[in-house]
Amino acid sequence: MTFFDVFGTCGNCWHCLVAKAATRCPHRRVYGITTSAEDGLLGGWAERIEILPGVKVLPLPEGIEPLDFMGGGCGLPTGFHAVERAGIVLGDTVVIQGSGPVGLNAAIFAQLAGALRVFVVGAPKARLEAAKRLGAEDVLDIGEVPNSADRIAWVHGRTADLGADVVIEASGNPAAVPEGLEMLRDAGRYVVVGQYTDAGDVILNPHRHINRRHATILGCWGYEFTHLHRAVQLMARHNARFRWRDLITREYSLEEAGQALEDMEALAVVKAVIRP
Amino acid sequence: MTFFDVFGTCGNCWHCLVAKAATRCPHRRVYGITTSAEDGLLGGWAERIEILPGVKVLPLPEGIEPLDFMGGGCGLPTGFHAVERAGIVLGDTVVIQGSGPVGLNAAIFAQLAGALRVFVVGAPKARLEAAKRLGAEDVLDIGEVPNSADRIAWVHGRTADLGADVVIEASGNPAAVPEGLEMLRDAGRYVVVGQYTDAGDVILNPHRHINRRHATILGCWGYEFTHLHRAVQLMARHNARFRWRDLITREYSLEEAGQALEDMEALAVVKAVIRP
Amino acid sequence: MTFFDVFGTCGNCWHCLVAKAATRCPHRRVYGITTSAEDGLLGGWAERIEILPGVKVLPLPEGIEPLDFMGGGCGLPTGFHAVERAGIVLGDTVVIQGSGPVGLNAAIFAQLAGALRVFVVGAPKARLEAAKRLGAEDVLDIGEVPNSADRIAWVHGRTADLGADVVIEASGNPAAVPEGLEMLRDAGRYVVVGQYTDAGDVILNPHRHINRRHATILGCWGYEFTHLHRAVQLMARHNARFRWRDLITREYSLEEAGQALEDMEALAVVKAVIRP
Amino acid sequence: MTFFDVFGTCGNCWHCLVAKAATRCPHRRVYGITTSAEDGLLGGWAERIEILPGVKVLPLPEGIEPLDFMGGGCGLPTGFHAVERAGIVLGDTVVIQGSGPVGLNAAIFAQLAGALRVFVVGAPKARLEAAKRLGAEDVLDIGEVPNSADRIAWVHGRTADLGADVVIEASGNPAAVPEGLEMLRDAGRYVVVGQYTDAGDVILNPHRHINRRHATILGCWGYEFTHLHRAVQLMARHNARFRWRDLITREYSLEEAGQALEDMEALAVVKAVIRP
Repeated sequence: MTFFDVFGTCGNCWHCLVAKAATRCPHRRVYGITTSAEDGLLGGWAERIEILPGVKVLPLPEGIEPLDFMGGGCGLPTGFHAVERAGIVLGDTVVIQGSGPVGLNAAIFAQLAGALRVFVVGAPKARLEAAKRLGAEDVLDIGEVPNSADRIAWVHGRTADLGADVVIEASGNPAAVPEGLEMLRDAGRYVVVGQYTDAGDVILNPHRHINRRHATILGCWGYEFTHLHRAVQLMARHNARFRWRDLITREYSLEEAGQALEDMEALAVVKAVIRP
Repeated sequence: MTFFDVFGTCGNCWHCLVAKAATRCPHRRVYGITTSAEDGLLGGWAERIEILPGVKVLPLPEGIEPLDFMGGGCGLPTGFHAVERAGIVLGDTVVIQGSGPVGLNAAIFAQLAGALRVFVVGAPKARLEAAKRLGAEDVLDIGEVPNSADRIAWVHGRTADLGADVVIEASGNPAAVPEGLEMLRDAGRYVVVGQYTDAGDVILNPHRHINRRHATILGCWGYEFTHLHRAVQLMARHNARFRWRDLITREYSLEEAGQALEDMEALAVVKAVIRP
Repeated sequence: MTFFDVFGTCGNCWHCLVAKAATRCPHRRVYGITTSAEDGLLGGWAERIEILPGVKVLPLPEGIEPLDFMGGGCGLPTGFHAVERAGIVLGDTVVIQGSGPVGLNAAIFAQLAGALRVFVVGAPKARLEAAKRLGAEDVLDIGEVPNSADRIAWVHGRTADLGADVVIEASGNPAAVPEGLEMLRDAGRYVVVGQYTDAGDVILNPHRHINRRHATILGCWGYEFTHLHRAVQLMARHNARFRWRDLITREYSLEEAGQALEDMEALAVVKAVIRP
Repeated sequence: MTFFDVFGTCGNCWHCLVAKAATRCPHRRVYGITTSAEDGLLGGWAERIEILPGVKVLPLPEGIEPLDFMGGGCGLPTGFHAVERAGIVLGDTVVIQGSGPVGLNAAIFAQLAGALRVFVVGAPKARLEAAKRLGAEDVLDIGEVPNSADRIAWVHGRTADLGADVVIEASGNPAAVPEGLEMLRDAGRYVVVGQYTDAGDVILNPHRHINRRHATILGCWGYEFTHLHRAVQLMARHNARFRWRDLITREYSLEEAGQALEDMEALAVVKAVIRP
């Protein structure tokens, strides 16, 4: 049993009804992100959580245990949404920028959505090894290849110098955006899903990066119930192939929550789970 | 009688056949743009022009004379393509950045494609008056409102503080890109069609401009025969309403070609026609 | 002031959340259609109507009076939805089958959505005259051309023998479906919006009508708030051009409701309004 | 090495240029289908074949041998195109009607395109066993379940009584069309790809099958080079999983061609290969 951590989406405002941009509803709230301990037991890292009226509860389908689901976490529907937004078609070559939970789930769903090949550009080694286990054809360690031009050349060398059909930014680093656009083929699709916090500005060239490239750039914010629902069904079907649970590097007690945060920040773990 | 000035598109390469990105075919050439006088009579500003074998010729439909068509010029299919790329739906509010030939044609086709309201941000006065005559609900003179934040506020003041559903950049100024993205509503569509030459870099904020806004940014390069064909049919039908011919501010002789260029650069004319 | 006559759509079921097929939500109800007098004052033809909690109320924008809106009626959002479903692009040739309120509103919105030409096939004369006033390029009276093959030939004669890009069935007659598919060009789009009640079966040829034609056939059920909202905004903008109010042939008192029904059934009126 | 058996598509007509419906180009020809022995060596079942100028040749990628490709045959790009036309999204439940080469390839590509589950309805046993080996979750033998209502109930029993998100008709039997539409969920997508020859008419109910169901019905004719190109790349990647070569039940000599036809007609083989 899990639940959809997004609540409050009103279903009655202009965003919800006319524009159908539900993830931008001004009343939208998210457990543990827009709520704090002062709002009640509306976050994680706790022995109990309060399920408010109207929160959508979702039974885990047969074949998934809670730890499998936690191996996906919020990266599961986020990566799913990014892949849906990318409009992947059968045979696409896809580059993922970033090898954290969102990037790894995007790598999974890109394959399930028809990608011919998925490449992952990220760090550190442990995460890139996870990417390979999950089916990435090749990975690039940005620690070993610190120069942006070299990384762009790496992608061009694997795509007949055309660039990738789809590039998904899941890194959180603003500098990834111009780099990713240089990795993209003409008339390709570029999804920006990693910039959930404001990590700063970046310099782009509108002529080269957007107009002449005939690029489609797709910002991707939040996820809807349909993404979580379908992601969980696919997890149940493909759990033997992708073993989401194995993304959990370490479990922590509630007292070790600070350590978990430190390890995440140091990228020392792929996925940290707190077991209260 | 006119002709499709794009030629050479091979129909046999990866861009043409697999990616279906025909405007990015490496063999694509354009009369007077990728060809020079050294290639033969393959440009304008001449008494005669050579129609190479394979160039697609298009009879002007009843109701259009050559001068009507010249009032549209290459801004006609370019603006048409930009509007198609925007995916305008019935009831959209559209902002056009730039009041040159591409921007004005985009303003026309945005209305024909179902826009509820079209706003044009540009300069100078004569072009903005043309925009009004062509149906723009309101226009903003950037000469009078030189501050970007004021221009963004102007759009928000006309869109219940939501921003526009669609913004089309047709200005050629890189700085228009972040400004236009601030004019865009959440989950809106932003078309970049004005950056045909490299006019420099610009600073963007990936979090605010792309990711959180759930924006769709669409580069738009060149046009295909289908755009010219359909644009000309619509011109014939709506010529009384839009009077493309009236966009021609002045006709020049062949000897005055230099003056025509100077006038265009000074924005002293909307559309300059050379009559050899 | 008006209101959205659809209510009860739950926002929580599989149809609403996962499939996003809100008009097929099993909890959906419609004033006067799925409700009867026994449910309360939940229909029209009454001096007062009960607005249940949760029913969405929509102020009429400046420029529309109640009688304008009643000239549109439920044909307004239904025709709007059919046109949206058709995916009309700039330059399309559109045939509407049926000249009742849904067909006439579809003719209006098809033009607003970018159609080059709209043809209306229907009856009787008064409705076809309304169609012409609303901008149809030509109309065909099925009373005068009773033979299906002749009507198909009439469309081919106006489309270079290609057939129309889009055909919208708004007639309620099952026989219109195979006839309309013969009027459709290869790879065209056919919308079925007129078969709201089961008026019987029809014979189709899957090879000729669907497969070889590469046809896209789009059933269209109900409408959502976004359709009503945007239709009303466009009505306010284009009321001088289309004068929806003039579609009301006659007003009836509440006592004359039976007569109104008889006149509608006899197609003696375009739109009947009961003024309680 | 293989080649694209479609040729003659002109790239210059209204179908090719304006409507972009290349598979309906009037100049389109297909080796062995629209050409006969009188036209030259333009068919199969021969020791040699003439590759006309302009015919597109495609090297088989590493990992595929000619017999693998022949196991796919023309069902490979046909099934691929049908799946692309279906617009499958991550998590869809898909029913395939027909277990011949087109149906089996559609079952393969539906899985690669993101389907959660694929069901195949067909005959005889050997083909259904192939479907299971290729990943179908369950199969229905129409020889054992001759009643249409029972087959529809079988699908509803596996889809929470909702029907399938996507149904692909690849049977060639006109009666499959109304049956398949009853298997489809509200607002689902139905592809008709099996009716390549006129096998007769069928009775439909426009209200129940199309309008109220809000169905999208998609005829699918032929294929383009992009479909063959991408299908072959995916075959090379997934050959170990799907082993197309194993679909070849028997090889025949040129003298046994008549026997091969008889076996195909009797459904005694999945795929027959003639080795001249």
